[in-house]
Amino acid sequence: MSRAEPLDLAASACPVPASQYDRIVMGHGSGGRLSADLLAGVFLPAFGNPTLSSLEDQATVPIADGHRIAVTTDGFVVHPIFFPGGDIGRLAVNGTINDLAVGGARPLVLAAAFILEEGFALDSLRRVVDSMRRACAEAAVTIVTGDTKVVERGKGDSIFITTTGIGLAPVDREFSVASARPGDRVLVSGTLGDHGLAILSVREGLSFETTLESDCAPLTDLVRAMMAASTSIRCMRDPTRGGLASALNEIAAASRVGMRLAADAIPHRADVRSACELLGLDPLYAASEGRLVAIVSKADTAAVLAAMRSHPLGTQAADIGEITADHPGHVTLRSGIGTERILPMLAGEQLPRIC
Amino acid sequence: MSRAEPLDLAASACPVPASQYDRIVMGHGSGGRLSADLLAGVFLPAFGNPTLSSLEDQATVPIADGHRIAVTTDGFVVHPIFFPGGDIGRLAVNGTINDLAVGGARPLVLAAAFILEEGFALDSLRRVVDSMRRACAEAAVTIVTGDTKVVERGKGDSIFITTTGIGLAPVDREFSVASARPGDRVLVSGTLGDHGLAILSVREGLSFETTLESDCAPLTDLVRAMMAASTSIRCMRDPTRGGLASALNEIAAASRVGMRLAADAIPHRADVRSACELLGLDPLYAASEGRLVAIVSKADTAAVLAAMRSHPLGTQAADIGEITADHPGHVTLRSGIGTERILPMLAGEQLPRIC
Repeated sequence: MSRAEPLDLAASACPVPASQYDRIVMGHGSGGRLSADLLAGVFLPAFGNPTLSSLEDQATVPIADGHRIAVTTDGFVVHPIFFPGGDIGRLAVNGTINDLAVGGARPLVLAAAFILEEGFALDSLRRVVDSMRRACAEAAVTIVTGDTKVVERGKGDSIFITTTGIGLAPVDREFSVASARPGDRVLVSGTLGDHGLAILSVREGLSFETTLESDCAPLTDLVRAMMAASTSIRCMRDPTRGGLASALNEIAAASRVGMRLAADAIPHRADVRSACELLGLDPLYAASEGRLVAIVSKADTAAVLAAMRSHPLGTQAADIGEITADHPGHVTLRSGIGTERILPMLAGEQLPRIC
Repeated sequence: MSRAEPLDLAASACPVPASQYDRIVMGHGSGGRLSADLLAGVFLPAFGNPTLSSLEDQATVPIADGHRIAVTTDGFVVHPIFFPGGDIGRLAVNGTINDLAVGGARPLVLAAAFILEEGFALDSLRRVVDSMRRACAEAAVTIVTGDTKVVERGKGDSIFITTTGIGLAPVDREFSVASARPGDRVLVSGTLGDHGLAILSVREGLSFETTLESDCAPLTDLVRAMMAASTSIRCMRDPTRGGLASALNEIAAASRVGMRLAADAIPHRADVRSACELLGLDPLYAASEGRLVAIVSKADTAAVLAAMRSHPLGTQAADIGEITADHPGHVTLRSGIGTERILPMLAGEQLPRIC
């Protein structure tokens, strides 16, 4: 997370070069600028291909006869592994399903690979596995293959889970982070940052009048309702690591458009706001695990919003801003009193191991 | 790995019950009896479905119009990450490709998820990534999606890689570990245990006149040649964790047949034999990462062996024994002087983090 910065376009356009680091730092896992830098400096030069380089949350792979599958993989290292509103197992299933869902894909099957630390309690493993079972049932997906490795005490941390999701890519739609156009609207499905602050509050031992709960949930069904309401959804993203600000910066950069958000329109839970104020954090950089942001044509905005609000996971859906032709690659935020600031990508790492 | 045990069918049929452990021990990652126990006691009861429960090295998933994809996932935690004949990157690519190959599937794409430890040298990461790039090129597969997480120093171990492979399942063949029949032959593609002993020799600082090298290699092309030579290959396995003995025990159990192997026919490198003698280990439990075992009808044995031996990765292919109707579920080994002993599944864990 990051505090407000002055409106300085030059600064936000200049990523930290890979050469500045010779060792991995926590920020390389932030989902923000350092993660992007590692991708651009190490992974893309080696593995670069049009599918990987498109940087969508899921890869689309042609199979045969025009059928395409969508593929996504994610490692989950969240700490603590049990938290209000979920656990690492539920997160591993929903996080992967959501990466498929925001591409419009229908999740088919999951693969799950476990890296366990010697000494991890079997009862905790059973609890995690049972939570995965319930999350799979909720989202109607099946785990068809898996793997378990064990590392010595002190060479891991209880449990890491890597889940890979395979879905059927939509046949009649093409979503892309490069397809936002000036005039389009920016919609979010609900309050933002709930997951990040729930994790942080457990870690820091914070307590509020209400319990901060993760929003961890499967988005497949919500996306289906949105797709039924409109054929001009440009793209969707689930704002996980790096939060809303990072997700929107990625879209702005890929589409070469600007974005102007209205701060007052962005929904946050009151307790998330309080926790952020207390900790000096910006909730726009805090992770959600059951929310999405969608770029939609202006004409279809009302229909998509209505579809979202009719769904249990979208009751607080909101139109938070517009796509602009000016300031391409940048996201700006207008406050209630009319001041405007740039909302850069997450620069460092202030909340590690959030997922 | 395990020392020779007396011919005691009752003992080998009785797995250690899950209830005997309340915490994860290294043996749960061995690929042997404790791994099977964890699968049967924790994962299958939660996730059980016909695909997962078939316990093949890859899952086959129907997509549409009769097309089926094969899916496999594996976490790689090998230590050390660089070793003679390979590194964790090459292993992660080939290990996953081989799980597809032994199911007769043509590998299409890979997904790769990295869990990095804070402080891991970027130069080492670049070396691993470059090795993955070369292994992908060699096997003609593409990494289409990935993920990177970072954990604090002391909560991981340099680098863990989980690779998931997706391939096109064969349209006209059905391989199954449950399909071995009495009279079939057991073939191996080359010397066994090279990978396991290469890792162990680096870890223990052993040196021999020759360098023990991992056999890490992609098996796709060898399998293609074998499939062209015969339509009566029942099943194939790559004998990784748990070695040849564990792979054959799984087939014997799933097919409800016995196996009788001729010890003298099983190929091992001389230096692997020496190292095993020195360390008191049985090479039949040591991992290979570029070898396969195949169960083939007696009639096609000569043709398949010839195809294997014509391939660079199969020059030392050998017929090592037969499938029998007696002793179903058990593998026995007949020595050169005619004594017979049972070859049980790997019971404990004497060589952790081999892959």
